[in-house]
Amino acid sequence: MGIIVQKYGGTSVADLERIQHVAKRVINTYDQGDNVVVILSAMAGVTDNLINLASEVTKNPDRRELDVLLATGEQTTAALLAMMLKSMDYPAASLMGYQADVVTDCEFGNARIIEIGGERIKELLKKRAIVVIAGFQGHDTRGNITTLGRGGSDTSAVAIAAALKADVCEIYTDVDGIYTADPSICSKARKLKEISYDEMLNMASLGAKVLQIRSVGFAKKFNIPVHVRSSFSDEEGTMVISEDAGMEQLVVSGVTSDKNQARITLKKVPDQPGVAAKIFSPITEAGIVVDMIIQNTRSGGQTDLTFTVPMGDFAKALEIEKRVAEEIGAEKVFGDENIAKVSVIGVGMKNHSGVASIMFTTLARENINISMISTSEIRISCVVDEKYAELAVRVLHSAFGLDAE
Amino acid sequence: MGIIVQKYGGTSVADLERIQHVAKRVINTYDQGDNVVVILSAMAGVTDNLINLASEVTKNPDRRELDVLLATGEQTTAALLAMMLKSMDYPAASLMGYQADVVTDCEFGNARIIEIGGERIKELLKKRAIVVIAGFQGHDTRGNITTLGRGGSDTSAVAIAAALKADVCEIYTDVDGIYTADPSICSKARKLKEISYDEMLNMASLGAKVLQIRSVGFAKKFNIPVHVRSSFSDEEGTMVISEDAGMEQLVVSGVTSDKNQARITLKKVPDQPGVAAKIFSPITEAGIVVDMIIQNTRSGGQTDLTFTVPMGDFAKALEIEKRVAEEIGAEKVFGDENIAKVSVIGVGMKNHSGVASIMFTTLARENINISMISTSEIRISCVVDEKYAELAVRVLHSAFGLDAE
Repeated sequence: MGIIVQKYGGTSVADLERIQHVAKRVINTYDQGDNVVVILSAMAGVTDNLINLASEVTKNPDRRELDVLLATGEQTTAALLAMMLKSMDYPAASLMGYQADVVTDCEFGNARIIEIGGERIKELLKKRAIVVIAGFQGHDTRGNITTLGRGGSDTSAVAIAAALKADVCEIYTDVDGIYTADPSICSKARKLKEISYDEMLNMASLGAKVLQIRSVGFAKKFNIPVHVRSSFSDEEGTMVISEDAGMEQLVVSGVTSDKNQARITLKKVPDQPGVAAKIFSPITEAGIVVDMIIQNTRSGGQTDLTFTVPMGDFAKALEIEKRVAEEIGAEKVFGDENIAKVSVIGVGMKNHSGVASIMFTTLARENINISMISTSEIRISCVVDEKYAELAVRVLHSAFGLDAE
Repeated sequence: MGIIVQKYGGTSVADLERIQHVAKRVINTYDQGDNVVVILSAMAGVTDNLINLASEVTKNPDRRELDVLLATGEQTTAALLAMMLKSMDYPAASLMGYQADVVTDCEFGNARIIEIGGERIKELLKKRAIVVIAGFQGHDTRGNITTLGRGGSDTSAVAIAAALKADVCEIYTDVDGIYTADPSICSKARKLKEISYDEMLNMASLGAKVLQIRSVGFAKKFNIPVHVRSSFSDEEGTMVISEDAGMEQLVVSGVTSDKNQARITLKKVPDQPGVAAKIFSPITEAGIVVDMIIQNTRSGGQTDLTFTVPMGDFAKALEIEKRVAEEIGAEKVFGDENIAKVSVIGVGMKNHSGVASIMFTTLARENINISMISTSEIRISCVVDEKYAELAVRVLHSAFGLDAE
């Protein structure tokens, strides 16, 4: 008898009919003899409605109180599912984040899980109860309610699975798995049977918004197999697992594109010690995350510096850099919003040289110009003109042999 | 510097505008230098909506899970008020029942407060924070969420006031105080400046639905002055206090009527030991509360027995007694729904003989027949024909000198 953790997202518990559906799925698993722990999100839309309500109170709602308010969303679905299971004569009990002892730091609105005291859960499982836990929420060491940020229920689920040494953490969502590329861009994209934690980490940060990235880090750390699958079908989804777990060996597992990027270039920056700090410190202080940075040395003690920021921060970053440029005596600052970052990801590329060269050749063949390049052990990203993003994904998908038959 | 506990009911926090109004009142008190603890109900209608939602899940929702669901109502208002106070630059923090350590028994849906570990509240007050507590909820010793039953926020407020040794517990509601009679029945009813705990206990149980009766018991036990007043005006309301606290000495403080009563009579019951138990045990086992009981001895070893039950339990009680009557050999059982219980209440009657005789004479003068009488130290109740209920209240109100000038 194993322990199976199942997490259901907002669309999977959107109304009583959907929750009924979840109840049936939970019971199916339970009846097969396993212990079941269910983690729930709020009903789709509820969290946004609560945020809107708070914003009617004040433009900048106190973060502690906002978390208290938001926590009601998952409390509601957890109570409803437990109620439904009991009305079907199954032993069940809901637990809020604090009752499940999900201990976090006190970063309200974006708290991180420190530890999970799973005693209460284990005690209930010993009695063969189905434990229904409100996701997305925890409590800090002073007993304040905290929430884990967007998609936080994924992290709740994986962390609880880790604490219970569960056999698998199933993430039920409205897509049926992880694809080699966005099917809306690349019609030949196919669902992956397996993907490694590291690949998923790179996919997630590049915009394949299926799992909260933090949850993948947790899963990797504690080696919890995560099964991403649809709550609307019985089909198998994608297993996110350790790369040594005997995975199929693809060189590249996925191709992604991210248009939510903008580029800022500072021309003719005096090449002096401390100048990079002057350029990036004010950006970081403004809470803006810089992704890629490229520096080209020019002649004459000057350098050009280019970096990318999320689109939403572009205007602010540009304004900051115009001020900085004057201060440090750079010649010129300009920005470009019409860019996209195209990436290929795969643990297989560690052992295969030539992935970069295939990527560059493939893009060149289509006359797609590459303006920035960054690489990691299992990822190569190129910044290209935004209008070529979809084309780039499709040709790379083919070039790396990912096309479905 | 004292401690003032303020409780706001559902209509007082019905929407953001009303909550804004509450915030201003709280701040007014705070600015006068006192420490303020606020207890909130859910927005008007929310608890009923949640109960309806649960009843869509199942006819008999699990009581533990129903409490988890209902607790979200007060959690929402507490978060919103604390958020509002903070946005107005006042230090404030919300606490849920379990955070305020409101410990109850585990009677879900109708839990009783065992104790209040007010440490967290006191700590916050020491920092001059306004503490906003979700009413109606607590937790049992195993950490399960419990709720205190209809009107439970009143009890939360008084119990917390007792734990903090507060100077006063203000109950803000949609009426402006306690009246000598229901103003919709008796146009000459006037608002009482003061009323004793015992009088209030008798009033509450007789249908003056201003305060949850349990809260009055708490207030009496810990001698907490309760100020019942309107959240819609600044006028003073009614103080519910100890009778030795130098109250104005009225013989009778109020006249009430209760039409939510029905009567059952068993004719010619064999007068044997144990027969009363046979009559009332099955009623009690069915969860029906019997109010008045009258037994008239007849000749020939037989007796007539009459008692009253709440209207909602009448059919069930009648059915039970028909079975019992056959069993014990009583001649006949009949019921009457068209009755009303009219009561006069006053601590002053302890020291004044003649209250009963004034009551009986006054009713007789109007040709109102009395079919049952019951008395306590500070109350006399008569069952009369339902159609005379309002008239009885008015003439008694006059007879005891309660009419407003």
